[in-house]
Amino acid sequence: MRREEFNGFVGVDIGGQTTRVGTFDRRGQLQVIHFPTEKNFVTECNHIVEAARQLVPQGIKRLGVGSPGPLNWRKKLLIGKSPNLPWVDVDFAQLEKLLGCTVWVDNDANVAGLGEAILGAGKGKRFIAGFTLGTGIGHFQIKNGHIYHGRLDVEAGHQILDPAGPVCGCGQRGCLEAFASAVAIQKLYGVAPHELNDPKTWEQIAFRLAQGLVNAAVFVCPDALILTGGMLARGEMLLEPLRRFYEQMLKVYPPRYRPPILVGELGDKAGVVGAIVLAKVGHAE
Amino acid sequence: MRREEFNGFVGVDIGGQTTRVGTFDRRGQLQVIHFPTEKNFVTECNHIVEAARQLVPQGIKRLGVGSPGPLNWRKKLLIGKSPNLPWVDVDFAQLEKLLGCTVWVDNDANVAGLGEAILGAGKGKRFIAGFTLGTGIGHFQIKNGHIYHGRLDVEAGHQILDPAGPVCGCGQRGCLEAFASAVAIQKLYGVAPHELNDPKTWEQIAFRLAQGLVNAAVFVCPDALILTGGMLARGEMLLEPLRRFYEQMLKVYPPRYRPPILVGELGDKAGVVGAIVLAKVGHAE
Repeated sequence: MRREEFNGFVGVDIGGQTTRVGTFDRRGQLQVIHFPTEKNFVTECNHIVEAARQLVPQGIKRLGVGSPGPLNWRKKLLIGKSPNLPWVDVDFAQLEKLLGCTVWVDNDANVAGLGEAILGAGKGKRFIAGFTLGTGIGHFQIKNGHIYHGRLDVEAGHQILDPAGPVCGCGQRGCLEAFASAVAIQKLYGVAPHELNDPKTWEQIAFRLAQGLVNAAVFVCPDALILTGGMLARGEMLLEPLRRFYEQMLKVYPPRYRPPILVGELGDKAGVVGAIVLAKVGHAE
Repeated sequence: MRREEFNGFVGVDIGGQTTRVGTFDRRGQLQVIHFPTEKNFVTECNHIVEAARQLVPQGIKRLGVGSPGPLNWRKKLLIGKSPNLPWVDVDFAQLEKLLGCTVWVDNDANVAGLGEAILGAGKGKRFIAGFTLGTGIGHFQIKNGHIYHGRLDVEAGHQILDPAGPVCGCGQRGCLEAFASAVAIQKLYGVAPHELNDPKTWEQIAFRLAQGLVNAAVFVCPDALILTGGMLARGEMLLEPLRRFYEQMLKVYPPRYRPPILVGELGDKAGVVGAIVLAKVGHAE
């Protein structure tokens, strides 16, 4: 899809600090208005509506929202309290009343993944699986242009790589997230990823991440794997051993069908771009 | 779906020894004709056509075929030589010319999984993931009534449970199949599963299988997991420790959303029933 086709569709990327509201203009240029996320949800909604109308004065077609979870995306609800947001039990369907258009909601990792899959690193590909490497490890699957959830939502940051491995925040042992998230790296090696400069340690992290990517390859059989998130700032320190171990480990598909490992192209715009895409394509399920 | 709704749709389950051709009659009773799989593919096709016409004299709506792979299901081809079949590079589209109706083709594990998902243990559920525990470990995912493949096909029997584990037939190390298939059990413990009576050994096998099922839960987020195949004949020897380890390991979803482990209900009819379902529903991709 070309960016111009998203004109009139508005995306909202809600973060703990900043809310970004965006659209693509008629020439396909990304236009974004951002403001500090409001403590009061009603005020937040009013700011979103104001920004959306300013961006698309001719009439908003639909709105997409990416928000930290836990969400019930089918009912458009934030369930209880998100660790990163000041609100409790809020209903994004409020925005439908204020705007008079349909609103689609999903969690931030899925929405950023949708952005990368449709208008970023995965453009033109049909099946995408990916991981967001940050404080935790988010996971997304985009299939035929839509976010895949299953019954609740996929959670492959919590695939078990070693049942005797370190304890994860989720209560399991040996999750991918317990080996390779920023929090895990700090805990296991006593240093934050942006300060970690020992190639041997990065090899250990990359080895476990490679196992996780091989499993994503065999469970999803995607056209590509996409990695996003803050840890990608470490570049080849992580990526060189990751690609090497991944190629050594993945044998079950013939070489030309092994999904390549791609790095997200949209940076901190992935969330708002994905929310614009969500506004247009909605949910398939 | 009720079984009566499949009247007129014919399924073919091709095995190394036996070919089964079946349909559901107007009262929803399964009717099957079987014959030894022919060495000559043209003769095989003629026998299939003959059996199909005998089962549905009023006119066949569509035909579904489950066959051992490697297949290109999109092109309806057997690629090269299957270890279990006497044919090389055969084209199932031949059957379309002989019958004058559409023919859908998929590999036997996917087709048996489709049968269990739609008319067996998974009836009424929307998202199913499962494993066939036999000589190897087959894997299937059924979503919204259709087989999911991704680019080629999912292969989660080859998820890596331990990158330093035993070498698998696929060339990888530590695959689920390298720990828990009948061939692996014979290799690792020197005894075939049907002769293995040591509960401690079954605990080890069940432990690895539980890790594989947790990973299926987080990658697919299904309504249920289905197990089929010869090893299920061992019943609680395998299932009791498997359910226990699975419950201990899987924590990331709230208890009532953890997919239950179900055992296939269709036995050796899963293949022909799944092929009848495939005839009706076809492929979504």
